[in-house]
Amino acid sequence: METMGADALPLTVNSSEKRESVCVFGTGDFGKSLGFKMLQCGYAVVFGSRNPQVSSLLPRGAEVLSYSEGASKSDVIILAMRREHYDCLAELADHLSGKILVDVSNNRKINQYPESNAEYLAQLVPGARVVKAFNTISAWALQSGTLDASRQVFVCGDDSKAKQRVMDIARTLGLTPLDQGSLVAAKEIENYPLKLFPMWRLPFYMSSVLCVFFFVYCVIREVIYPYVNGKTDSTFRLAVSIPNRVFPVTALTLLALVYLPGVLAAVLQLYRGTKYRRFPNWLDHWMLCRKQLGLVALGFAFLHAIYTLVIPIRYYVRWRLRNGTITQALANKDSPFSTSAAWISDSYLALGILGFFLFLLLGITSLPSVSNMVNWREFRFVQSKLGYLTLVLCTAHTLVYGGKRFLSPGILRWNLPSAYILALIIPCTVLVMKFILVLPCIDKTLTRIRQGWERNSQPSKSALNGKPDI
Amino acid sequence: METMGADALPLTVNSSEKRESVCVFGTGDFGKSLGFKMLQCGYAVVFGSRNPQVSSLLPRGAEVLSYSEGASKSDVIILAMRREHYDCLAELADHLSGKILVDVSNNRKINQYPESNAEYLAQLVPGARVVKAFNTISAWALQSGTLDASRQVFVCGDDSKAKQRVMDIARTLGLTPLDQGSLVAAKEIENYPLKLFPMWRLPFYMSSVLCVFFFVYCVIREVIYPYVNGKTDSTFRLAVSIPNRVFPVTALTLLALVYLPGVLAAVLQLYRGTKYRRFPNWLDHWMLCRKQLGLVALGFAFLHAIYTLVIPIRYYVRWRLRNGTITQALANKDSPFSTSAAWISDSYLALGILGFFLFLLLGITSLPSVSNMVNWREFRFVQSKLGYLTLVLCTAHTLVYGGKRFLSPGILRWNLPSAYILALIIPCTVLVMKFILVLPCIDKTLTRIRQGWERNSQPSKSALNGKPDI
Amino acid sequence: METMGADALPLTVNSSEKRESVCVFGTGDFGKSLGFKMLQCGYAVVFGSRNPQVSSLLPRGAEVLSYSEGASKSDVIILAMRREHYDCLAELADHLSGKILVDVSNNRKINQYPESNAEYLAQLVPGARVVKAFNTISAWALQSGTLDASRQVFVCGDDSKAKQRVMDIARTLGLTPLDQGSLVAAKEIENYPLKLFPMWRLPFYMSSVLCVFFFVYCVIREVIYPYVNGKTDSTFRLAVSIPNRVFPVTALTLLALVYLPGVLAAVLQLYRGTKYRRFPNWLDHWMLCRKQLGLVALGFAFLHAIYTLVIPIRYYVRWRLRNGTITQALANKDSPFSTSAAWISDSYLALGILGFFLFLLLGITSLPSVSNMVNWREFRFVQSKLGYLTLVLCTAHTLVYGGKRFLSPGILRWNLPSAYILALIIPCTVLVMKFILVLPCIDKTLTRIRQGWERNSQPSKSALNGKPDI
Repeated sequence: METMGADALPLTVNSSEKRESVCVFGTGDFGKSLGFKMLQCGYAVVFGSRNPQVSSLLPRGAEVLSYSEGASKSDVIILAMRREHYDCLAELADHLSGKILVDVSNNRKINQYPESNAEYLAQLVPGARVVKAFNTISAWALQSGTLDASRQVFVCGDDSKAKQRVMDIARTLGLTPLDQGSLVAAKEIENYPLKLFPMWRLPFYMSSVLCVFFFVYCVIREVIYPYVNGKTDSTFRLAVSIPNRVFPVTALTLLALVYLPGVLAAVLQLYRGTKYRRFPNWLDHWMLCRKQLGLVALGFAFLHAIYTLVIPIRYYVRWRLRNGTITQALANKDSPFSTSAAWISDSYLALGILGFFLFLLLGITSLPSVSNMVNWREFRFVQSKLGYLTLVLCTAHTLVYGGKRFLSPGILRWNLPSAYILALIIPCTVLVMKFILVLPCIDKTLTRIRQGWERNSQPSKSALNGKPDI
Repeated sequence: METMGADALPLTVNSSEKRESVCVFGTGDFGKSLGFKMLQCGYAVVFGSRNPQVSSLLPRGAEVLSYSEGASKSDVIILAMRREHYDCLAELADHLSGKILVDVSNNRKINQYPESNAEYLAQLVPGARVVKAFNTISAWALQSGTLDASRQVFVCGDDSKAKQRVMDIARTLGLTPLDQGSLVAAKEIENYPLKLFPMWRLPFYMSSVLCVFFFVYCVIREVIYPYVNGKTDSTFRLAVSIPNRVFPVTALTLLALVYLPGVLAAVLQLYRGTKYRRFPNWLDHWMLCRKQLGLVALGFAFLHAIYTLVIPIRYYVRWRLRNGTITQALANKDSPFSTSAAWISDSYLALGILGFFLFLLLGITSLPSVSNMVNWREFRFVQSKLGYLTLVLCTAHTLVYGGKRFLSPGILRWNLPSAYILALIIPCTVLVMKFILVLPCIDKTLTRIRQGWERNSQPSKSALNGKPDI
Repeated sequence: METMGADALPLTVNSSEKRESVCVFGTGDFGKSLGFKMLQCGYAVVFGSRNPQVSSLLPRGAEVLSYSEGASKSDVIILAMRREHYDCLAELADHLSGKILVDVSNNRKINQYPESNAEYLAQLVPGARVVKAFNTISAWALQSGTLDASRQVFVCGDDSKAKQRVMDIARTLGLTPLDQGSLVAAKEIENYPLKLFPMWRLPFYMSSVLCVFFFVYCVIREVIYPYVNGKTDSTFRLAVSIPNRVFPVTALTLLALVYLPGVLAAVLQLYRGTKYRRFPNWLDHWMLCRKQLGLVALGFAFLHAIYTLVIPIRYYVRWRLRNGTITQALANKDSPFSTSAAWISDSYLALGILGFFLFLLLGITSLPSVSNMVNWREFRFVQSKLGYLTLVLCTAHTLVYGGKRFLSPGILRWNLPSAYILALIIPCTVLVMKFILVLPCIDKTLTRIRQGWERNSQPSKSALNGKPDI
């Protein structure tokens, strides 16, 4: 997919015009890679080193000078060095005054220092214009030209012209600069590459808890219970049968948990009579990671689908089928065709397939490149209307699965109902609440609140203000 | 996935340089959200309000002034108000002269007013430079930082410098501005967020019609016919058996309809002897939504695949299998292995799987982020060569499915052939036409026409012109 | 998905300001399309033609002049003509001096001429500032507004201001300009649209060789051997049974080949004691197309999954099942349930499903739009940790598949073991080597080498240099 490798980008040698020059302090891996890339993209690159004569292995076409000499050659200086070595820059303060210093450093831990490296640098060299950038880019990716991971360069700084210069350089290197505001944002930018899927943490914990709970629950019902009651060895169920109960149950619960916060938020807004009060933090966080929650649910639904499709290949199933047929043949018994059993079996499957199909559609539209192509109305249509339809279909799939034996006392083991009955609690609650919320009388109030109306506001104010929300 | 939430973007407080300032007229939801976001991104934000003293709940750090005072503070004024309140701006014409007025308004219906809001505004305040922008962005998304739906900001205006200023602001807010030309484009931009999948409408109608037709057709053949002729209750077939006939038939027909317009266009070009005449409108529109048509077909093919894979789990199938075995066992009949039956069954399955696999590949390459990575030659290779191969495989899959009973009179019911025979009509037509079109003699003429040659043109002209198409 | 068709972009007619003007030389297809698009986006477009009076069919609003007149109207001239006609530009050298000449030409073959068209143009008209651009855009796509394939415009040139002007035009047309450096890059840019999946070539060859080899191998074992030894006709196995052996075996081998170069590189670095020596070219190339290799492996794994899921539908399998049951019923033999067989069958399936699921996740994260949203640490986590887990699961899946009959002499046919045993060689080798590499003592040395430490370097140097890599 990579269109042009590193080798494809030739050095600008015979350029008639004067090339823009950039200085890189530090000849470590990152400095070299960045310098090489900038050379390829037509910049004149000067390396600044404490010991210029021993610095080897630098890209062809680059000069190596001392720090002070290097600084004098360019007004953009990229500091490819660790924070621990910044103190030597204080001595160069005169040479660095007025220069654009680009801090590319990262730390080893989140919030390792009280202030961000870039702010620390700004204090050390007060005369310079410090810009934070490039810390999210990997040296290896720059070298090899395979920027499969993020091309995003978060840029921040207090001087907007300096920031603009650095963003132009990033753009020339084929990267995507994103302005993050003033230097105060540097802390967040430095923490960013140390994070590991922060938005996925809550969904991951939720699904782990659900998975473990339902797994233990099913093991008790289907492995321990038969062993205690009949000395039957059902351990082989651990591999496929029990996961194929845990996965759908977890998927359905998680899918309901995607729509629960929206319903809770609506109830809260109705209760408060205004939308201008912040939701509690936990609700806010929950709402922000609904997409991730939904994708985890989709993963479980997918596993459930495949686990179900392999059923006829399993030794246990084949054995039971064969033995059942033989027993029946030997007994010469007739098993008449039951239309209602066929209806239940088929509609159970059809509901599941359609629900899964819509769920997949939801997943595909949440791909960044797809969701970026739709307008707001289309996005809401898919994520809200189609989403609720998916929840309805999947809940119906589970209800029909229960069929006639639903809540019949025969399936209780140690008074524990089947896992799928537990799985229905949250989805049914969400659907009932949603149904109440879309009743015309309640929906009308909610819509008014969401358009800015407040139950307890002074009537004068909104009349005076005269600008309804748009 | 969201890298930095709203909270991560600190206010620029200690900035040494003078910050650029923006004025927002109107303190509704959208105005507040946009103002807050701009504050975060380092702008000085001034709100203009009819009643500055009663406007509350505004973001910290923002000033609230009267309209005229606000206007004097900045040369960019964002009008976060409804079109219905624009008339009050006419009184402020003196204060607004020379300013950049950003119209962010939307309407409630497509083409609600004879002229676009932005053009109306330009007439009201002739001295101002009106730019249309930001109307596709949702207030809620700006607030929460989850711009999962479009980050695209369509911008238009008659003054290119003003447009550039607004596009810079959009870029700073992390959005993607797209220049749409002069202010005449505002109408289209205002209609855009009101549209619901415009390119999907034709494919949706086509597939609905096909689906309903084939569903009724199959119900007649497989539910009503056995009921009338033998009083058999086959209603349970409505859930799985009949959908699993309707879906593949619809999928194959839609896939053929993806390639039919291309073939028709080629025939039309051959007939006319030139490519410089426009196709009829219906053909144009059909060609533009081929991608959507193909994706709908893929959806049906996917449903067909899963419906087929669950076959062995169905009660009806298991019952029939068991009964068949028992009958045979009791009769002590031998059923010899038929190599030709095995060949037909296996090649039918293999063709279907390979066709579906290629179809999925086509679907994946039509994802915006994937198709954006390939060059034009690669895109044509995938969508044309692989596309036709898919059509050939899926048609062959259907033909082999028919196997020996193809067109045998025994399968006619009330003189209606099986649905899959109807499904073969369009694909076979397309393949035969395509086969004729790629015959060397015809292909040569077509290629010449597509390179700009015209059958009836004066021979002098192209010789004089001397610039072949590239 | 296309937001606004060509018709939506109105001409800028009543613009008060002076529009920027662009001249297009050549009235072929591409020239017309580009000119029309620029008119729509608000440029004043002048066509230059050798015979202005006979050039017809040009977009409304455009002027047609002679070359020299056209050139005098604008300082940006787009040369929509073939390289073969460039010589006529030499005569116009005076009129073109100082102008920005945009070379949009493509060739018919890779490296058709010794120098790139753009460099040839720069020699012909030394006074002009030549910029290469737009050659990757298709005329048809510009006309129809469906830029589904690449919107990327590679731009190169020796004059950075001229390059900037052209990049601005590209941006205004809704395209994505990418600066590729000086005019030397033109050769690469001209070759780009002629390439057909260059990064996929090695994976394609590797998988073809593996596929053909294993196919022939399986045909010998499963079709020719039974025919020679027992005159049994097993040809029907060619359609499903044998592909379903070839696909998983190829998928597993390819997946192992994704991780083999990383392991080899680590061994090489350990052996050399430095990371500052280039890998051999074959290893470099192999490492760069690992993603493509993995995606091809995923394709085969997907086919294996579906081929496995259709097993119970196959005539052969149903026939065998029925016959087995009948034989058993007639013999009145009991087949006791074997817990160990159930365990092997179920864990084999579970391992396969989980491996396939993780493999799919890897594939999804390699979608450009997804991988662009994750940071470097997350990308490495997914591609390395999850990748190895996938390899472990898939290898275990194959090992358990063998079960007890693994290497038992009974399954040798003509001394050939089953194909899956061959498939285990490379994965097991990779896993053993990786296991050795992550042993603490070896991992420590490797980490130090990767941080820039060199075994044979002068100790003084790194001490003096004092800048560890970051």
